[in-house]
Amino acid sequence: MSGADQRRGVTRADVARLAGVSTAVVSYTLNDGPKPVAAATKARVLEAVRLLGYRPNAAARALSTGQSDLLALVVPTVEQSYFAHLAAAVERAAAAHGLSLIVANAMPDRVAPVVRGLVGRQVRGLIIAAEATADATKEFLAAGTPTVVINQASPIGSLLTLGPDYRAGTMNGVHHLIEAHGHRRIAYLGGDVDGDERVRGWTDALSAAGLALGPALAGGFTPADGRTAMRALLREHPEVTAAFCASDQLAIGALAALAETGGRAPDDLALVSFDGSPEAEFAVPALTTVNVPIDAMAHDAVTRVLDDISAGHVRYEAELIVRRSCGCQ
Amino acid sequence: MSGADQRRGVTRADVARLAGVSTAVVSYTLNDGPKPVAAATKARVLEAVRLLGYRPNAAARALSTGQSDLLALVVPTVEQSYFAHLAAAVERAAAAHGLSLIVANAMPDRVAPVVRGLVGRQVRGLIIAAEATADATKEFLAAGTPTVVINQASPIGSLLTLGPDYRAGTMNGVHHLIEAHGHRRIAYLGGDVDGDERVRGWTDALSAAGLALGPALAGGFTPADGRTAMRALLREHPEVTAAFCASDQLAIGALAALAETGGRAPDDLALVSFDGSPEAEFAVPALTTVNVPIDAMAHDAVTRVLDDISAGHVRYEAELIVRRSCGCQ
Repeated sequence: MSGADQRRGVTRADVARLAGVSTAVVSYTLNDGPKPVAAATKARVLEAVRLLGYRPNAAARALSTGQSDLLALVVPTVEQSYFAHLAAAVERAAAAHGLSLIVANAMPDRVAPVVRGLVGRQVRGLIIAAEATADATKEFLAAGTPTVVINQASPIGSLLTLGPDYRAGTMNGVHHLIEAHGHRRIAYLGGDVDGDERVRGWTDALSAAGLALGPALAGGFTPADGRTAMRALLREHPEVTAAFCASDQLAIGALAALAETGGRAPDDLALVSFDGSPEAEFAVPALTTVNVPIDAMAHDAVTRVLDDISAGHVRYEAELIVRRSCGCQ
Repeated sequence: MSGADQRRGVTRADVARLAGVSTAVVSYTLNDGPKPVAAATKARVLEAVRLLGYRPNAAARALSTGQSDLLALVVPTVEQSYFAHLAAAVERAAAAHGLSLIVANAMPDRVAPVVRGLVGRQVRGLIIAAEATADATKEFLAAGTPTVVINQASPIGSLLTLGPDYRAGTMNGVHHLIEAHGHRRIAYLGGDVDGDERVRGWTDALSAAGLALGPALAGGFTPADGRTAMRALLREHPEVTAAFCASDQLAIGALAALAETGGRAPDDLALVSFDGSPEAEFAVPALTTVNVPIDAMAHDAVTRVLDDISAGHVRYEAELIVRRSCGCQ
């Protein structure tokens, strides 16, 4: 017995021997086909499977059928709660198709090797929510595994991309601060300030209202980033009365920084953020936030990766959920 | 060409043909052995790999070597931020060994099938942070894949288990509320109240101080659970002046419920929670919390699953991080 055999333990042949059938009949029984198996034979096979503790080898099955019961999702990191919620939404959508989901984290420079590893592992489809380099993007196309890229602002070459309308969603949020609450100096906090569609939406809303662009303070998307950005804003831009935050988590950190100075939202500074995550509801005050319809996007990503990965871009409306941080109620 | 071949695309045989070598030499080149390959031949093989876009098949490699470069982690759901942070910590520990990590979610009733799927996919080791039924636990032992169970309060049969000292950690937290801040009526909020080691720690601390057991309000671990529990506490137990929360996320929801009534922590109700998650620092007020040393636990889980899965239980000290919600400063 080779080392590999020892690791795999009980084989299909062992099951066949105990049940007194051919290995093909074991396969037909476990895979529900392609040929029918008599009920009594099936019972004998399943009893042998149980007695021996036989576990069909998914890697072998994937090799022989070229199919697998697994989808893979790549995100920058589930440590950012937006991606954790997205992973859970994709998992629910996969489960509705009887598929399991595995999740792998990959920051931009790691996307290519992570995708390569998943493709080699015979996943049935790949959903990528990570930001990828141009090289990695070429790999997705070459890989042969059906791939959908989600959380994208705009089309990428001949890939199928899905994503919220970051720009219009942010415009609405900033517009609300201007029209409903009369703010004239509105900052933008967090994220990648250059080329981000949210920044474009913020710019558009201010320009449309004839207002000067407030300060834009770049940073990441975490609470720590939000605290840093808000501390800088309070120190350097006392004229600002409201801020649009690139993520809910960023806004949560911004609220903490505001509290350090004894300030509160919305009285001392009004906030609107982006994501529509469950956490936004539990901030004090509850966050007014632009909602990404992650369940719809996850559902469509799973359906399309299984059936139709024709190139194109699908954009989802991101509606404003109005709560307290903007000044409402 | 069969359907399976088409799905897999370029084969090792294609590479061998283009490079003018045997398929074995292609393997030796790509796997750095077991036999040596002349430099010029190696260069020809790698050029053919590049030209054809050949990608070695991880499933096939796993089958032939019985090894893989992949660890798997099973958690109840990454949507609970504690598990998202745990997943990130395990991923960092895996990366330090040159291994990738895939994460699968499984609620208690789904642990067995999820583990079966991962084992069949030839992962090198399995780290389970999910609560499993007794049946599923038997499966881990039978599976043959090295398995470590983390986040456990106490030993499970002949498995290797790791986990924080929930009981002593909670005792310290409750003790702090009693000794440093003079609370006499201290509630317990959230989680599974029966048999949870945190509840035991809370009970022990109150008993040791000669105090009556305050109310224990069962629930889950999410912000929504915390809001529900705190609303009930404020409505039904006005005599309570402090509460121990089973998780940081629960405490965040409890703070939101307190704010609904115009109340604040620690003045109207002092809080200590459990987890030591990054989010605890950004709550207003910042949470005093019992810290689970997830990096140490993740590091040991990866090291042990690769090298030494002898049965036993490793317990980690969970220290109190003192911030504002308890009444300090």
